[in-house]
Amino acid sequence: MPTAYTLRPIGRVESPLTDQAAAPRQPDEGAPDAWLVLDDRYAPALQGLEPGTDALLLTWLDRADRDTLAVHPRGDTDRPLTGVFATRAPDRPNPIGLHTVHILSVSGTRVHVRNLEALDATPILDIKPVLLPDR
Amino acid sequence: MPTAYTLRPIGRVESPLTDQAAAPRQPDEGAPDAWLVLDDRYAPALQGLEPGTDALLLTWLDRADRDTLAVHPRGDTDRPLTGVFATRAPDRPNPIGLHTVHILSVSGTRVHVRNLEALDATPILDIKPVLLPDR
Repeated sequence: MPTAYTLRPIGRVESPLTDQAAAPRQPDEGAPDAWLVLDDRYAPALQGLEPGTDALLLTWLDRADRDTLAVHPRGDTDRPLTGVFATRAPDRPNPIGLHTVHILSVSGTRVHVRNLEALDATPILDIKPVLLPDR
Repeated sequence: MPTAYTLRPIGRVESPLTDQAAAPRQPDEGAPDAWLVLDDRYAPALQGLEPGTDALLLTWLDRADRDTLAVHPRGDTDRPLTGVFATRAPDRPNPIGLHTVHILSVSGTRVHVRNLEALDATPILDIKPVLLPDR
């Protein structure tokens, strides 16, 4: 089996969030609306994305530490050290961020979404429907 | 911004599913139980993973076509061509598989899970809790 695979970002997040320390840890903690700005070549891949629906957004948390295997949840040292696979901590071997976003509008290859806790310029990897309408 | 990032699989799926054509498209269509076999170095990252709970499993769909941008859902040509970001089709620019699994047991770095539609030997990228217990 190959020991590595190459991700090619399809775009990036445009957001007023630029400061990691000040960023909300969860979308319901004051995350702002943001834009998903995709490369023009991916326009055909957005056909069928519906404003008013939710989608899963996969990002690459490019500021994460990939060597961290255990953390104190939320950085609280009173809480026991926990394996990163049992937490949503961004620091992990493959720091893929998973966000549920509400699609407000789609304009060309720009997708306006509600309540995204990702930082400005975060690379975007994929967008998937939350439900499985194609089954 | 870098134009590529490197994924390093943390392990692989052990499953009786070996034939892509015969594999179920969704876990409720007859997917078998399977093992997530992680590399030994990731043992600390599994601390706190609880049998009896659900987890999100992220895989790399290494048999996917990364140049596909639109598909007929479920391969049914009677259905309109739909952008891959509006479907769960495995063929997509960054073919990351997202699966909800029920954890049956954890034995060292082997995790036994229920109903996984991923093929045998599929590379594993990440495991995350479904809920956000650490908020």
